[in-house]
Amino acid sequence: MLDKTLKVSRLLQIYGGLLTDKQREILDMYYNCDMSLAEVGEELGISRQGVRDAVTRAVDLLVDMEDKVGALKSLVEIKSALTSLAEGKETISSDKVMEIAKGIEV
Amino acid sequence: MLDKTLKVSRLLQIYGGLLTDKQREILDMYYNCDMSLAEVGEELGISRQGVRDAVTRAVDLLVDMEDKVGALKSLVEIKSALTSLAEGKETISSDKVMEIAKGIEV
Repeated sequence: MLDKTLKVSRLLQIYGGLLTDKQREILDMYYNCDMSLAEVGEELGISRQGVRDAVTRAVDLLVDMEDKVGALKSLVEIKSALTSLAEGKETISSDKVMEIAKGIEV
Repeated sequence: MLDKTLKVSRLLQIYGGLLTDKQREILDMYYNCDMSLAEVGEELGISRQGVRDAVTRAVDLLVDMEDKVGALKSLVEIKSALTSLAEGKETISSDKVMEIAKGIEV
């Protein structure tokens, strides 16, 4: 679906508030600022292996949250339904749009 | 926006997987099965006050998760945009639908 790094960045955007400040900081440095494990470790005064473990644990948490909550999955599904509906047409029946809207449970 | 009980039920659907089994069970009994605090307490062998505290804590957690993740808020916004677009019209420009689709970040 999405490039793996992009997907972690997006999961971090969505679920980052549920991580600790430290977890968020490490993932941000590694995935968004393109720093190496060694560079992150140097910055934070921890070993490269320590950073690797922290990254792995935090990514596992994000993936687990998405498995349980599915916020990204829902958005992907809605976007895909809308794109399929609109693609290659000039106008569409508003009933079709309303059908998609009604299918979104709030 | 939504009736308060309905909203807790929906937040429980979305974020329930991030609560403990016990928290989920108590909220399910209280909000979905329409049991009173006393009835939940009797069923679980805890005091009415204990149930009340557990319900309050778990609802606070769900509300905090929604504040931080905003999964429900995103769905409400998309549904509302689609409904506004489609309402009172027979056909709509597919460009408008594509615009909404493109605005959904995945």
